[in-house]
Amino acid sequence: MSNPNRSNGKVVYGKRNSGKRYVTYRKSPNKKALQPPKPKESVRIAFLGGMNEIGKNMTLYEYANDMFIVDCGLAFPNADLPGVDLVIPDFSFVEKNADKIRGVIVTHGHEDHIGGLAYLLKKVNIPIYATKLTIGLIRGKFEEHGLLNSAKLVEIKPRDNITLGSFNIEMIHVNHSIPDAVGLAIRCPAGTIIQTGDFKIDTTPVDGDMIDLTRFCEYGKKGVLALLSDSTNAERPGYTMSEKSVGESFELLFRKANKRRIVVATFASNIHRVQQIIDVAQSRGRKVAVIGRSLENLVSVGSELGYLNVPEGLLIDINSIKNYPDDKLVIITTGSQGEPMSALTKMAFGEHRKVSLTPNDYVIISATPIPGNEKMVGNVVNELMKRSIEVIYERMYEVHVSGHACQEELKLMMGLVKPKYFIPVHGEQKHLQKHAGLAIAMGIKQDNIYIGNIGDRVELSADEMKLVDKVPAGEVYVDGIGVGDVGNIVLNDRKHLSEDGIIIVVATIDSVSGSVVSGPDIVSRGFVYVKENESLMNSARDLACRVIDESYDSRYHDWNSVKTRLRDELSRMMYEKTKRSPMILPILMEI
Amino acid sequence: MSNPNRSNGKVVYGKRNSGKRYVTYRKSPNKKALQPPKPKESVRIAFLGGMNEIGKNMTLYEYANDMFIVDCGLAFPNADLPGVDLVIPDFSFVEKNADKIRGVIVTHGHEDHIGGLAYLLKKVNIPIYATKLTIGLIRGKFEEHGLLNSAKLVEIKPRDNITLGSFNIEMIHVNHSIPDAVGLAIRCPAGTIIQTGDFKIDTTPVDGDMIDLTRFCEYGKKGVLALLSDSTNAERPGYTMSEKSVGESFELLFRKANKRRIVVATFASNIHRVQQIIDVAQSRGRKVAVIGRSLENLVSVGSELGYLNVPEGLLIDINSIKNYPDDKLVIITTGSQGEPMSALTKMAFGEHRKVSLTPNDYVIISATPIPGNEKMVGNVVNELMKRSIEVIYERMYEVHVSGHACQEELKLMMGLVKPKYFIPVHGEQKHLQKHAGLAIAMGIKQDNIYIGNIGDRVELSADEMKLVDKVPAGEVYVDGIGVGDVGNIVLNDRKHLSEDGIIIVVATIDSVSGSVVSGPDIVSRGFVYVKENESLMNSARDLACRVIDESYDSRYHDWNSVKTRLRDELSRMMYEKTKRSPMILPILMEI
Repeated sequence: MSNPNRSNGKVVYGKRNSGKRYVTYRKSPNKKALQPPKPKESVRIAFLGGMNEIGKNMTLYEYANDMFIVDCGLAFPNADLPGVDLVIPDFSFVEKNADKIRGVIVTHGHEDHIGGLAYLLKKVNIPIYATKLTIGLIRGKFEEHGLLNSAKLVEIKPRDNITLGSFNIEMIHVNHSIPDAVGLAIRCPAGTIIQTGDFKIDTTPVDGDMIDLTRFCEYGKKGVLALLSDSTNAERPGYTMSEKSVGESFELLFRKANKRRIVVATFASNIHRVQQIIDVAQSRGRKVAVIGRSLENLVSVGSELGYLNVPEGLLIDINSIKNYPDDKLVIITTGSQGEPMSALTKMAFGEHRKVSLTPNDYVIISATPIPGNEKMVGNVVNELMKRSIEVIYERMYEVHVSGHACQEELKLMMGLVKPKYFIPVHGEQKHLQKHAGLAIAMGIKQDNIYIGNIGDRVELSADEMKLVDKVPAGEVYVDGIGVGDVGNIVLNDRKHLSEDGIIIVVATIDSVSGSVVSGPDIVSRGFVYVKENESLMNSARDLACRVIDESYDSRYHDWNSVKTRLRDELSRMMYEKTKRSPMILPILMEI
Repeated sequence: MSNPNRSNGKVVYGKRNSGKRYVTYRKSPNKKALQPPKPKESVRIAFLGGMNEIGKNMTLYEYANDMFIVDCGLAFPNADLPGVDLVIPDFSFVEKNADKIRGVIVTHGHEDHIGGLAYLLKKVNIPIYATKLTIGLIRGKFEEHGLLNSAKLVEIKPRDNITLGSFNIEMIHVNHSIPDAVGLAIRCPAGTIIQTGDFKIDTTPVDGDMIDLTRFCEYGKKGVLALLSDSTNAERPGYTMSEKSVGESFELLFRKANKRRIVVATFASNIHRVQQIIDVAQSRGRKVAVIGRSLENLVSVGSELGYLNVPEGLLIDINSIKNYPDDKLVIITTGSQGEPMSALTKMAFGEHRKVSLTPNDYVIISATPIPGNEKMVGNVVNELMKRSIEVIYERMYEVHVSGHACQEELKLMMGLVKPKYFIPVHGEQKHLQKHAGLAIAMGIKQDNIYIGNIGDRVELSADEMKLVDKVPAGEVYVDGIGVGDVGNIVLNDRKHLSEDGIIIVVATIDSVSGSVVSGPDIVSRGFVYVKENESLMNSARDLACRVIDESYDSRYHDWNSVKTRLRDELSRMMYEKTKRSPMILPILMEI
């Protein structure tokens, strides 16, 4: 691809105003550069989320005066964002172009693809296009946000076409860890772009409905300008196992459970996993109870819309499990990632109100830990084992398969679609680069591969793929009902507070004489246990007295310099005496 | 084993005063119980750390009036302990019995075995016995703590015997990821106990010195009362690969590096790993520079004591790397776990003062992430890749092997030692239970296996193994120079502060009239960005005014009830308006 600062076929690094680094593969200088360029039809893609990160997927397409969005997800905050509930994309570019946006197409119902929609709709009310199940899940979210009346939700079937201004988009059925997932064929006068969405190639899916490879082939045959493909598993060789293989493991394990009660923890959105648990439970004469809000919601939406086939009388209410013997029961629960507030974690610690586990339970954790969650899952396993409960976890049996394509599937997709340009998406840098490596192995030229960053706005035409500019993109933090009111200052304060706590120095001062009429009082939180450190607190009080006495100048009423001195001297004293750096907050009241 | 509340060969669960759960395997009631029991020689073991947890290993042995300790380690705090630097064992049981303690034997020089010694010595100054390298590493720590003059450090060789009161202890050479590691044969009139320490069976170790299986065999032949064995890898089938296999990978990768500079990140304590890097560097004509304080320290101690063989002129100072071309250099660095302040992390983010990485660097992360560190390691890999640096990480090549025995080695150890009782140590519950499962497979009776918890004090004789009582054991937090002054109240405050911040309400009140003479002022930190939330702060001030006016009763000067009302009403208001729960801290000053 070409670039304002072109170089000779080298990989070039730079730093943009976002402060994030990016890598671009650039094309050699065009030899015809001196001739006047013939204008080419071109299409633009702006990555508002999900590029060079896992989570909050959001891509914006632009042709002439028309724009539309693919997906609008959220990300879950990492440990660096204390108190933050959710992270959503920055919508300012969308708001600025509200009049051009023709709609949002959603590829499937996972949080990292739908979780930002409610917040987006509060800014710009544009129509949303998705398949039946995805619409059902979005509807649930919108209900919580009170958006159901105003939202325009349009249900679309795979192979249906949607016209959004100059764009015509076809939805193509793909396999994933939630039903009704689609990839997109996006057509405009500049050419066809295939965005796979999250996908895997499952030749024996639970619902029998294999990914529509034929449509990908047909587009490949007609010519595809660019492929945007799922990079999640680009580090993993081979193929992703079929979801069916998990069902086979369940059959084996349910037999091994023998007279014990079975508890299976899984991702709340994996309808096919739940279906397989239900099927095996039914065949072994066990009733099924479901626990955990998100799972209960999924079972209800899934059954209602016909994605989950629950035999009459099989499901029982969690409150009635005491009426069934252990060997006639399966409990499906949330908490497969060891989340502290989840049902499984509460059960493991003996804190669940409705389910008490005993050594006659048999727990299957039907998931692998997402990077970062290993420790939490390990803690839950440990707690269960302390209660002498047998636990099937991690790779002990084939109790989990991924929803994302591994290397051979990714290469197959490229081989069918045969794109001119390749843009790996949905991954961190290491995933994107591995995916790019696969593309090179498939014969796609390095110059025709773009490894981008959020905020990149890329232009594609038959001639070239180039970075046009950067648009605003980033992380907006949702904390409680506040959206974007927690920023770096607040987060840095939270981190500081969490490490060494706070010391507050309060004094009331006569503004005329400058003398202290009350205080100084020293109050601390999260610093030391005060009762055992009275002498430290007394020293702090003495120091505060001295500083206020010495530094108050009644001519100027210069409170700020008194506060600064208080902060500096107290900080120094505390560090010397404790090797800690609590936040020091002086409050001087004037009367 | 028997127990005050005996039951019939069942696994029994209980809860002790420590609040932690434990599982014990109990023996059937002794049929001779009605006859007067013949007194048997018995030995006691108290687990002060490292049982049912990974880290801060510390075991206390007790016979008649003599006690000694094996290891005294630290644990690194998890995310639940903000601001805590280190976690050490609770020494109160040791302090109480100071007159009986004859010494500490240290099995090897890793932090989880030596890191608590300095804190222990400040309480009771007892002699420390260890092998040469371990003593060297302890010496370095004691120097930092100013303990070098007072400490009694005694160097012991494998196969040497130490007499500590009624105990005679032999050190037995084992393989591990640090040289000079030993297991122990602990003899007293009650019998022989084998404590393996951390070990693996490496038939081709880098220093040529294979684990002294012969001694373990000899003890096995003579009869062993109990085996305490390393459970770290009890979940992993098969054998742990030889450290030599990593050297072979280095040879391959150093060739692949070609003209690039090589950067290898590894654990600072793995002398054999460093030796292999040095050897391959030497053979390929590259100089070696070392970076990271702990690694520099290890290289200096290791060379000085003869554990690291560095060819003359091979090591160069990090400040002179600019004088060598890339293909003549290897940099060995800390940071293989993605630790935020480590040299590799700083290099990856372009923030290292001395080393700037370019695409002509080739980075090998010679380690696997410890559970919980996967995300941090991933971040470092991503950052390196953003700079177009090739990174060898995780299981791409055999660039790391564990220092702990896998299942086949653990079974071999049991088979050689043939203990009557088996106590799996050095592991979380899941490791201990898997290890117990292996013991059962080896024919050890379930009743003769003890899965314990820290604080358990177990008595072993030829007749039985039983839990005697619980002794104080737990976590003591080191924060700065404070040891134990940060407890649950302070930590809970830190967590609260980190999630929603703090709101301070200050007012100066006339103690006679009860009227507010200054304030109320509202100050917040870590809550919201105040400039954008002025109206929220104004509402808080109005509420505070009203509460103080209404609730102050001048007859009683009941400040506490005013404060309580302020806290409650402000909390409620803030939650209603923001769905957040900041800490509310009312400060009322009286004049």
